[in-house]
Amino acid sequence: MDNRPIGVFDSGLGGLSIVRQLVAALPSEDIVYFGDTGRVPYGTRSQQTIIRYAREDIDFLLQHDVKMIIAACGTVSAVLPQSEIARLPVPFFGVLASASNAACRSTRSGRIGVIGTASAINSGAYQRYIHNVLPQAEIFTQPCPLFVPLVENGLIAEDNQITNLTAEMYLAPIRSSDVDVLILGCTHYPLISGIISKAVGPDVALIDTGKETVIDVAGFLAKNDMLHDKDSVGTKRYFVSDDIDGFSGIAEELLGEKITNIEKVDFEK
Amino acid sequence: MDNRPIGVFDSGLGGLSIVRQLVAALPSEDIVYFGDTGRVPYGTRSQQTIIRYAREDIDFLLQHDVKMIIAACGTVSAVLPQSEIARLPVPFFGVLASASNAACRSTRSGRIGVIGTASAINSGAYQRYIHNVLPQAEIFTQPCPLFVPLVENGLIAEDNQITNLTAEMYLAPIRSSDVDVLILGCTHYPLISGIISKAVGPDVALIDTGKETVIDVAGFLAKNDMLHDKDSVGTKRYFVSDDIDGFSGIAEELLGEKITNIEKVDFEK
Repeated sequence: MDNRPIGVFDSGLGGLSIVRQLVAALPSEDIVYFGDTGRVPYGTRSQQTIIRYAREDIDFLLQHDVKMIIAACGTVSAVLPQSEIARLPVPFFGVLASASNAACRSTRSGRIGVIGTASAINSGAYQRYIHNVLPQAEIFTQPCPLFVPLVENGLIAEDNQITNLTAEMYLAPIRSSDVDVLILGCTHYPLISGIISKAVGPDVALIDTGKETVIDVAGFLAKNDMLHDKDSVGTKRYFVSDDIDGFSGIAEELLGEKITNIEKVDFEK
Repeated sequence: MDNRPIGVFDSGLGGLSIVRQLVAALPSEDIVYFGDTGRVPYGTRSQQTIIRYAREDIDFLLQHDVKMIIAACGTVSAVLPQSEIARLPVPFFGVLASASNAACRSTRSGRIGVIGTASAINSGAYQRYIHNVLPQAEIFTQPCPLFVPLVENGLIAEDNQITNLTAEMYLAPIRSSDVDVLILGCTHYPLISGIISKAVGPDVALIDTGKETVIDVAGFLAKNDMLHDKDSVGTKRYFVSDDIDGFSGIAEELLGEKITNIEKVDFEK
């Protein structure tokens, strides 16, 4: 057993959807969450900048003596090079590997779609990973840069005309590419999965990156005897880099409950 | 005369629209531009964070020995307190004052609309400024947080359905408030002024904050004998905080010409 907390970070609040699934799967684990709300979004920035920000996020979590690190950010997990991950003193899980493995298991036709932020898609990381697992796969990708601001501004109702039109604009090529599996490569996207599903058609299975990551994390901790051994409910600490007053209603939407204990950090000082 | 450059900064690239107007009005002036593309957008962040970022942007420009500073960012010019401005060693112009003065001159009914980012509007700075100039003014404000991502993703064609629907969603209350003047309190908005005009109706005069600011800047420099005295075309230096590869086509759209000399700065190091 290992009673240290699990460290989770994201460019902003999207990663709270993974915390929610983590709490459901492993209720007694302690969790330290860091959301870089002072510099969100990562998905439109250059790779070098994303890597620098991710390094700082990871160092912050390591200061809290975490037993593992989850990059709950589709962009970071696509952009962070293996050399960065290899130097970490604790195990690292990104959403990319878990989601890609799940897609490779699920597909019948070998035609896999991936949507994400501009940086995540343009990095080519999904294509590389999936081709390693399933060399014959045909991969169709589409950056959807407006999905994050639409979700963060609360336009998530299934009949919202603006979000539906945006989904149709982005996803028409995916629909016509005849994939049978689509990776939702960003933690915000499950909040509009109904709209995405309408746009790609009912025969496409959607892969929720957060859900797949949590399944892998739980399996890894059990297999390596790293689960927390207490019976009580784990403690949760939430850190953000912008001021607390920017902590929006979307956080509760993502986490599924009210957050009262939020702390601000400032590592630019 | 004062042959030092004019310093212009913005959270990102939106301020290039002001550089364009500055070049047209004062072609022989040297200009140093800083766009904080590594931390854009400011308009969704807390006031403390915006003030901290603005301080760093200003310090960077001061290192380049500028003769004045223009905050080409609707958010910064709304949020930065007078005490910060007062400590500066050179004159400071924000878009808020120029735009507000123009609106007060233009209105016949005294009913003034203001749109901008969430932080700019929620700061209450436009209301305070306008009431000082025109105490009887009735002010109607509306944050439009999706306009910046829509413009930055290139959805600016006048018949774009998504941007038109978004404009109708945001601007219906402004339309029914019967204003005769609307301040476009963000440097991105002039790129969709046709769509905004349709949404608020043809009888509403739109105030372009950049245009008004440049008129004020040119007048100030002339009056204080601070104009550049050379006849040749001024030099332009462009700095950004994200990598250059993130310098998008929207930059040329805003500036009206191709930029070749871009330099990256990193003041977090």
